Amino acid sequence: MQKRLGILTSGGDCPGLNAVIRAVVSHATLTYNWQVVGIPYATRGLLERKAIPLSIHGLDLRGIDPLLNMGGTILGSINKGDTLAHVEEIVAGYHALELDALIGIGGDGSLAILNQLQKQGNWNFVAIPKTIDCDVSSTEKVIGFDTAVNTIVDALNRLTFTAASHDRVMIVEVMGRTAGHLALQSGIAGGADAILIPEISYTIQGVCEHLAELRDRWGRRFAIIVVAEGVQIAADSSKEPSSQKPSCGIGQYIADELCSCTNHQIDIRVSVLGHIQRGGIPSASDRLIATAFGKAAVDLLANGQSAQMVAWQNGQVIAVPLETVLASSPCLVNPNHFLVQTARALGIYVGENSILFG
Amino acid sequence: MQKRLGILTSGGDCPGLNAVIRAVVSHATLTYNWQVVGIPYATRGLLERKAIPLSIHGLDLRGIDPLLNMGGTILGSINKGDTLAHVEEIVAGYHALELDALIGIGGDGSLAILNQLQKQGNWNFVAIPKTIDCDVSSTEKVIGFDTAVNTIVDALNRLTFTAASHDRVMIVEVMGRTAGHLALQSGIAGGADAILIPEISYTIQGVCEHLAELRDRWGRRFAIIVVAEGVQIAADSSKEPSSQKPSCGIGQYIADELCSCTNHQIDIRVSVLGHIQRGGIPSASDRLIATAFGKAAVDLLANGQSAQMVAWQNGQVIAVPLETVLASSPCLVNPNHFLVQTARALGIYVGENSILFG
Amino acid sequence: MQKRLGILTSGGDCPGLNAVIRAVVSHATLTYNWQVVGIPYATRGLLERKAIPLSIHGLDLRGIDPLLNMGGTILGSINKGDTLAHVEEIVAGYHALELDALIGIGGDGSLAILNQLQKQGNWNFVAIPKTIDCDVSSTEKVIGFDTAVNTIVDALNRLTFTAASHDRVMIVEVMGRTAGHLALQSGIAGGADAILIPEISYTIQGVCEHLAELRDRWGRRFAIIVVAEGVQIAADSSKEPSSQKPSCGIGQYIADELCSCTNHQIDIRVSVLGHIQRGGIPSASDRLIATAFGKAAVDLLANGQSAQMVAWQNGQVIAVPLETVLASSPCLVNPNHFLVQTARALGIYVGENSILFG
Amino acid sequence: MQKRLGILTSGGDCPGLNAVIRAVVSHATLTYNWQVVGIPYATRGLLERKAIPLSIHGLDLRGIDPLLNMGGTILGSINKGDTLAHVEEIVAGYHALELDALIGIGGDGSLAILNQLQKQGNWNFVAIPKTIDCDVSSTEKVIGFDTAVNTIVDALNRLTFTAASHDRVMIVEVMGRTAGHLALQSGIAGGADAILIPEISYTIQGVCEHLAELRDRWGRRFAIIVVAEGVQIAADSSKEPSSQKPSCGIGQYIADELCSCTNHQIDIRVSVLGHIQRGGIPSASDRLIATAFGKAAVDLLANGQSAQMVAWQNGQVIAVPLETVLASSPCLVNPNHFLVQTARALGIYVGENSILFG
Repeated sequence: MQKRLGILTSGGDCPGLNAVIRAVVSHATLTYNWQVVGIPYATRGLLERKAIPLSIHGLDLRGIDPLLNMGGTILGSINKGDTLAHVEEIVAGYHALELDALIGIGGDGSLAILNQLQKQGNWNFVAIPKTIDCDVSSTEKVIGFDTAVNTIVDALNRLTFTAASHDRVMIVEVMGRTAGHLALQSGIAGGADAILIPEISYTIQGVCEHLAELRDRWGRRFAIIVVAEGVQIAADSSKEPSSQKPSCGIGQYIADELCSCTNHQIDIRVSVLGHIQRGGIPSASDRLIATAFGKAAVDLLANGQSAQMVAWQNGQVIAVPLETVLASSPCLVNPNHFLVQTARALGIYVGENSILFG
Repeated sequence: MQKRLGILTSGGDCPGLNAVIRAVVSHATLTYNWQVVGIPYATRGLLERKAIPLSIHGLDLRGIDPLLNMGGTILGSINKGDTLAHVEEIVAGYHALELDALIGIGGDGSLAILNQLQKQGNWNFVAIPKTIDCDVSSTEKVIGFDTAVNTIVDALNRLTFTAASHDRVMIVEVMGRTAGHLALQSGIAGGADAILIPEISYTIQGVCEHLAELRDRWGRRFAIIVVAEGVQIAADSSKEPSSQKPSCGIGQYIADELCSCTNHQIDIRVSVLGHIQRGGIPSASDRLIATAFGKAAVDLLANGQSAQMVAWQNGQVIAVPLETVLASSPCLVNPNHFLVQTARALGIYVGENSILFG
Repeated sequence: MQKRLGILTSGGDCPGLNAVIRAVVSHATLTYNWQVVGIPYATRGLLERKAIPLSIHGLDLRGIDPLLNMGGTILGSINKGDTLAHVEEIVAGYHALELDALIGIGGDGSLAILNQLQKQGNWNFVAIPKTIDCDVSSTEKVIGFDTAVNTIVDALNRLTFTAASHDRVMIVEVMGRTAGHLALQSGIAGGADAILIPEISYTIQGVCEHLAELRDRWGRRFAIIVVAEGVQIAADSSKEPSSQKPSCGIGQYIADELCSCTNHQIDIRVSVLGHIQRGGIPSASDRLIATAFGKAAVDLLANGQSAQMVAWQNGQVIAVPLETVLASSPCLVNPNHFLVQTARALGIYVGENSILFG
Repeated sequence: MQKRLGILTSGGDCPGLNAVIRAVVSHATLTYNWQVVGIPYATRGLLERKAIPLSIHGLDLRGIDPLLNMGGTILGSINKGDTLAHVEEIVAGYHALELDALIGIGGDGSLAILNQLQKQGNWNFVAIPKTIDCDVSSTEKVIGFDTAVNTIVDALNRLTFTAASHDRVMIVEVMGRTAGHLALQSGIAGGADAILIPEISYTIQGVCEHLAELRDRWGRRFAIIVVAEGVQIAADSSKEPSSQKPSCGIGQYIADELCSCTNHQIDIRVSVLGHIQRGGIPSASDRLIATAFGKAAVDLLANGQSAQMVAWQNGQVIAVPLETVLASSPCLVNPNHFLVQTARALGIYVGENSILFG
C-alpha cells in the first residue's frame, strides 16, 4: 500500500520553508512513490485532523513552480498554539490522518514540542531545523539564516547612506531572540561601527567613547550601531535595572542613553527592522540547504529512522537524535569566536572586553 | 576667466542626489569648462564659506565612478538649519566663495528658503526638485520617488509572505508627509488590501468591514494595510480627537483601533518602514531623471537664466520659474485620480467614498 | 446572463503580463461580475478553442497571490504563430468559445494581427500594449520596459566593475529590435561611455577616437559600450556592406572592428545579455501600469467600446483607436531627443553627429 | 620603524576583493600600526615598482566607505601576465618597494605563481583564496563563489519565466572552468531540470529521454538545462570527437545536438551568462569571508608566519602551508557528493549514472 507522509511547518516563518516542502514532495513522490500531505498550521492541523494533498502537479501554475522562490510557508504556521492543552488529541491526529510518517520543520521551541508528541504518539518523525536566529544546536546551518543576514545587510547599506548624508548615529535593532548571530554577522558584513549582542555585556560609556574616537581620530561624523533585540540594559545604565528589557524597545533605550551621555550633541535615529527580516526570496544558500535537508529527511524515514533531526556538520548532511539536539544548550555566540575577534580587529565596538584600536 | 559653479543638496536625502552631482560636474566641465565646487551641508556650507572642488577625476576610485549607484549625498545635507537666523551671512557666502552660479537640489521646503536667499542675494540660481514624497508642484517627476516606491514594494512582498503564513493583518507605515503618493502607488503595486492616505478620510468601521468581507467572501485570512504617515485619526475613532496625530505613531493607532473593533479576534502587527525608504541604489528611472535634470540645470545657467526650477512635463525637461512653483499648492493625491479608482476597482479599501465590490 | 471575457497574451513575454491578468480578473469579477477565461498561447488557443477559467481564487496558493510578482505569462504565448493561415478558424474560435469580449496584450506585431482578426470577426476587443522595446506608438508607457531597463542597468553595474578591474572595453549587446530606447536609457542610467542605437549612424573611427580621448585626456583605462541589437554595420566599416547585419552578432562585429582599428592594443570582451532582459520580478512602475491598463481595458469593454488600445498619455490612461495606433510609425528614438543630448552632454559617444567634449 | 605591508589582487576579479582590501587596511593600521600599500595590477605592479598608499581615510568618500559593497578590485588585476618572463625583476620589486610583507589574493593559478616568487624572493607572504569556480583545495570557502551562485540563480529565475511562457528549452551556460560547483549548486537552487558538469559524463540520448519524460509523464512543456563551461562533448555525440570543446561554445553545441535528437520538434534557446557572473555587490557571506580572511592574513604575518594560505575549515579560519595547497588536486565535484544525489532525488538529470525517477 502507498505510504502517506505528512509535512508541517511550525513557529515563525522564514525564507526556504516552501523550498523544503517542494523537495520533500518531489523526492517522496519520484523516488519512493509515497503520497505527501500538508498539515496546515502546524499542530493545529493535527488537532483538527486536516491534511492537504500535495503533488508535483498541484503546486504548479502551468508547470511554473513558484515554491522554490517564495518566502513564507504555503502550509501556514502558528507561533504559540494551544498544543500543550491538547496533547492527546494532537497525538491521535497523526493516526487519525493515517500518516505513516511526519516531517516537521521548526526552530528549537517547536522541535521540543514535536519531540514530546512523537514520543507519546510513537510517530515516525524527522525534524528539519529552521530559524533566522541560528540558535538550534548540533547543526552549522539552518534554513532562513543566510537570507535574513542578507536582508539586514541590504538595510544597513541603505541606512548608511542616509546616516552619512546627515551626520547621524543610526541605531538598527535586529532580531535574534537570545542569540547575537544575526547582529554579529550582518554588522560585520554591513560595515557597522558597533555591534551589541546578548552574549557580551557593554557599557553606554564604552559606546560613547567609541563614537568620540571615530569622530576625533578618524573624522567620521556618523555611525551605524547594530543592536540585537535580546540585548539587555547596559552595565552602567542610568536607568533602574528593575527590568532587564526596556518597554520602549532596546534600540530606543540605547538611543536615549547615548543622548544623555553625549549631552544631546548628536543626532540619533532608531530603525527597528521588524518583520521584513523574515521575508523575501530565499538566498541560493538557503534554497540549497532546504533542498538537501528535505531530501535527507525523506531518506531517513525511508530507512526506518525516526526521532532524528537532519543537520549540517563539516560539509555533510547527517542525522542527529532529537534528544541530543534538545539536551544541548541553544547555540549562542561564543564571546571568543573568531568573528567577534574579526569585528574588533576592524575597530568595531562589540562590548566590554573590546580593545579599541589596540 | 573660468566660471565657478556651486552645487548643494538640501533637506532629507534620497537616492539620485549623487547622480545629479555627477551629471552637473561632467556637463559643466566637459561642455562649458567651468569649475564646479560642492557646498557642504546645504546653506551651512555657505554660512561657513566652505567649498569642495569637484572634478571628474576627484570623484573616482581608480576611474570607477560610484556616484551613479550610490544613495545619499556626498555633499551632506541638513534638514532644518539655522538658515533664517543667518540670512545675510548666507547670502554673502555665495559671493565670498566667488560663485558665478549655484544649483540647489531640494524639496519644497528647501526650495522656498533657497528662493528667498537668491532673491535677496541676486544669485544666479537654478533648483532641481527631489523628494521621495513626490509633492513638489509643477513637475511630474522628482528625484527619489521611483526608488522609494520600489523599496516599499519590496518590503510589502516580504511582509505579505510572513502575514500569509501566520494569518496576520500587517499594518505598514510608510513615509510621504502630507501626501499619499508613496502609499497609494506602492500599495497598488505591492498588492495591499487597504491603503490609507491623508487626502481621503476613512473609518475604522470601513476597514473592519473590508477585512470581514475579505475573510468571509473570499476566504482571505490575512491582509496588508498600507498607511501613510500623514494620515490622521479616523472619522469614527473611539479616541478623543484632541490631537490629530497619535503619539504612538499612526500605524500603531490603527492597529489598536482595529483590535478593539474586532474584539481582539485578529492577530495584528505593525511595521514602520522608516529610514530604509530613503536609502538604496537609485532605480534606473531616478538615475535618468537625475542626469537629465543635472544637464538641464547647467544649460539654463549657461543661457543666463536664473530663479528657475527644472521640471518634467509631458515628456520634456523644461524650466519653471521658482515663483510659480512656490505659489502653487503642494502636489497631493487627487481623490478622483484614476489610480485611486484603479485601487478600488481591484477591491482595495481606500477610504470613505470607497465602493466595495460594486 | 453573465458575460464572458477572454484574455490572451501574444508575442515575446515580459514582466508585468501576469499583473495585467490579475487586474483584469479582479476588476471584471468584483465590479462587473463577469466570468473571465484565459486563452492559452495567444491565437492558438482560439484556433484550438481552449479557454481556462480564471478566478480570484483559482490563481491563489492559499490566498497568496503570486501573479503580481511573477514574470512571464501563465497563459503562455507564441511569437510567430500560423495565424495568417487560419484566420477564419481563429475568428470563429472567439464565437465558439462564447466570448462576449476579448482583451489582448501584445506588441505592435501582435496588435496588427489581432486588429485584423477583430475586424473580420466583429469582436469586442481592447488591446493593451506591452514590449520591452518601447516602440508601440500612441502611448508613453508600455508594460515591461521599465523592468528591462532596470535589469540592463544592473548588468551594466556588474560588468563595469569587472571591466574596470581588468582595464577592458566591454561591449554589451542589448535588445530593442529596430528601436534604441532600451540601449539609450540603460546606457545613460548605467554609466556607459558609448551608446550605439539604430536611429543614429556611427563610425568605428568615431568610437576609437572616443576611447582614445577617454584614456589620454581623462585617464580612463576601461570603457563600457552599449550596443542595441538593431544597430547596423558602421558607416566606415572595413567589411563589405553586403549584409547590414553581421551573422556573428552586432556586438562581436563592433569588437572585431575596434580590435582592428586599435591594432589589437585593447582588451575587448562582448557580453550578449539575451533573454534575462525579458525576465524578472516586475518593477513597481510596471506593476502600476499593468494594473491601471488592465482596469481601464475592462471599463472600456463595459462601456461598449471596441477596437481600442489603452494608452498612457500626459499622465492619464486613455483609449486610442487601434487603427490610429497601427497607422502610425513605430516609436523610435528621435535623434534630437533631450535624452540623446543629455548623453552627449555627459561625454557619451552616441553616433556620428556627436560633439565630443565641446 | 613602521612596517610596510603590500597587498595585490591577481587573476579574474570577483565580488569581495575590495572587502578584503578594506579589512587588511583597517586591521593592519588600527591594530599593528603598519603602513599598507596597494600593488596595482598584480605582479605587474611589482615589476613596475608601483605602490599606492592605502589608508582608512584615503579610501573614503566623505567617510562613506564604498569598498565593502563594491564588486571588482580597486587595485586592478591581470589574468595572464608576462610574469614568468620577468621573475627576477618581480622578485626584486618586492624589496625595491621596501615591503616587509605581502598579501596576495588569487585563485589557484595565481597562487602557484605567487608561491614560486615568494620562495625565490624570500618574501613574507600570505595568500587569500578567491575564485567563483570554488576549485581551490584545502578550504571549504573562497571569496566570490556565494555571490556568483546567487547571481546565476537570479538569472535562472528570470529565464524560467520566459521559458515557461513560450514552452522553450533554455540552455544556460555558466562559468566554472574545469569544476562543476557553480553549475551544480545554482542548478539545484535555481530549479533546473538538467545539470551538466565536467565531472560526470552524459549522453545526448539521456538528456532527450529526460525531456520526454518531463513532458509525457509530468506535463512539463519547458525545461532549464544548466551547462558548465568545462563540459565536454557527449559520450554519444554525433560529432567527431576531434576536439573535446566545440568552437561555438558548449551551450550551443548541446542545443544543436538536442535539436537533431528531437527532430527539431522543440524550441531551444541558449543563454551564455558571461561576465555578469563575476560582478555585483558581494553577498553577506562573501563579505564575511573576505573580512575574516583579511584579518587572519594580517595576524599570520604579524606572528611571523609566511608561505601560508588562509583557509576555512570546519567553521574555523586556519592557515595551510601554500605547498600543501598547491600539491593537492583542484577541488572538483565528487560524483557521489550528497548534492549530486540531492539533485537526482529531485528528478534532475545530472549525467550518465543518473537514475531517473527511481
